[in-house]
Amino acid sequence: MQELNKYKDLFHEQVRKVQDQVCRKIQDLDPEVELIEDIWEREDFEGNPGGGGITRVFTGDKVENAGVNTSLVYGKISPEFAKKFGGNADQMWATGVSLIIHPRNPKVPTTHANFRMIQIGDKHWFGGGADLTPYYPIEEDFLEFHSVWEKVLRPYGHYKSMKETCDTYFTNTHRDNEMRGIGGIFYDHFNSGDLEKDFEMVSKLSEEFIPSYFPLAKRRIETEWTPEDEEFQLHRRGRYVEFNLLHDRGTKFGLESNGRTDSILVSLPKRCMYSYKYAPKPDGPHAKMMEYYKPKDWV
Amino acid sequence: MQELNKYKDLFHEQVRKVQDQVCRKIQDLDPEVELIEDIWEREDFEGNPGGGGITRVFTGDKVENAGVNTSLVYGKISPEFAKKFGGNADQMWATGVSLIIHPRNPKVPTTHANFRMIQIGDKHWFGGGADLTPYYPIEEDFLEFHSVWEKVLRPYGHYKSMKETCDTYFTNTHRDNEMRGIGGIFYDHFNSGDLEKDFEMVSKLSEEFIPSYFPLAKRRIETEWTPEDEEFQLHRRGRYVEFNLLHDRGTKFGLESNGRTDSILVSLPKRCMYSYKYAPKPDGPHAKMMEYYKPKDWV
Repeated sequence: MQELNKYKDLFHEQVRKVQDQVCRKIQDLDPEVELIEDIWEREDFEGNPGGGGITRVFTGDKVENAGVNTSLVYGKISPEFAKKFGGNADQMWATGVSLIIHPRNPKVPTTHANFRMIQIGDKHWFGGGADLTPYYPIEEDFLEFHSVWEKVLRPYGHYKSMKETCDTYFTNTHRDNEMRGIGGIFYDHFNSGDLEKDFEMVSKLSEEFIPSYFPLAKRRIETEWTPEDEEFQLHRRGRYVEFNLLHDRGTKFGLESNGRTDSILVSLPKRCMYSYKYAPKPDGPHAKMMEYYKPKDWV
Repeated sequence: MQELNKYKDLFHEQVRKVQDQVCRKIQDLDPEVELIEDIWEREDFEGNPGGGGITRVFTGDKVENAGVNTSLVYGKISPEFAKKFGGNADQMWATGVSLIIHPRNPKVPTTHANFRMIQIGDKHWFGGGADLTPYYPIEEDFLEFHSVWEKVLRPYGHYKSMKETCDTYFTNTHRDNEMRGIGGIFYDHFNSGDLEKDFEMVSKLSEEFIPSYFPLAKRRIETEWTPEDEEFQLHRRGRYVEFNLLHDRGTKFGLESNGRTDSILVSLPKRCMYSYKYAPKPDGPHAKMMEYYKPKDWV
């Protein structure tokens, strides 16, 4: 327990560092972007101080909306909550960073990542990942994103399984199993038995988010786009909302456990669109993009 | 069973009639509106013909998007499906109309209604209701809507309970119990034991949708609106999507039972908006409108 407490602080430090770095990168991508920072606190199940978090929300012309949140929560939990994790522990802590970026330019993908460490009773694990949701078929960008994750996970041997978990997880089962985007990596309840090694791996993952996304975003952020490109983007953002509200376990868990609604739903895009039986023009770039929303071997 | 089969056909006739009438009213409200009609069929659990439906979807400048759907489905059901209804029946039928109208003008409320009759094994019941989601505080319109339902339900003594069920049901529990709109009536598993009387009541309800909505819509459809009115509308439409995807049992049930996704999600507004901690300007009409999104005695 004492050793785990050390990791709680270390991991919290790590996610705070990542939060600051990612925020600077967003401001670099869109120097005019507006930032709101909210620092919040919570009580635990018994009404004692239970930690809190820092929510940072960006709105701008280039980065239409983004959220970069960290939290460190701890304390007593309800028996009902404990049961969800298959035990009768009464104490927990969790710390992590979660982020989402919805750029305005349809040629810059939406991206999402989160890295968290959790302990309930005497069990601990890591969860998280990073995934890309592009709206324009620029294959070299997709390859670059996946390559970063493959490279950092190579020494640990987890790329293939984490990539497959991501493909399966971010899927709109109610839309003929269309993926939300082109995947990335995802893992949950990760605990290899070697805490030091797991900690090292997840810390590295959290540091690789920046090189996985910002170089490609920077390359595309000033490129031209057409009204059709935007229409397709808004339609796919609608699918993004469908996934997040219908299927995402993190959203569901957050809302059900009385999390801070505005911090959780900051994942939704500022604008989106729904159309009956939407289909892109045949043979165009958007029809081509549709072919990428299914599992694919990237590296 | 034979008597119930008679009601299956009678109720299907009734909902088809309502569908046609509502569609004409939508075309009257927006003469330029485009209509797509899709006639679909389904198979039952054993792959035999299991009925189908008629989906009608409207898109226009005044009626931004609308859907008016009927279906009559029947046949064998899976044991898993039967269990949800607390039995081991292997046959069912269900018929109903469900409709949603999202006008472009923020001074014309969004509305939703559905009227359905279901039999599983030897149990049958009615479900449905009608509710209003305005975006501008025009109290006389709200009163008119509720008055129609109060009047038709008066002889049956069900207005109060159906109004309260509606207030409770269409609530975003994750948004401090804000209602989706200003309510209306809602009922489920309705069966008083007097089939003839229940049938008569629900048929009347289905006929009162037109007088409850179209007169007020017609009065407001040509009125002016400001960009702030539209921004507030788009924000509230975002809340509408949150309700439908997070909480609506009909949506959940439809998607889980492998319903036709595009027919189910036609309930979503064409455009919507999400903003972090959105709040309307104090003291304006939109701040006033916020006060209506909670249970209120109307008549």
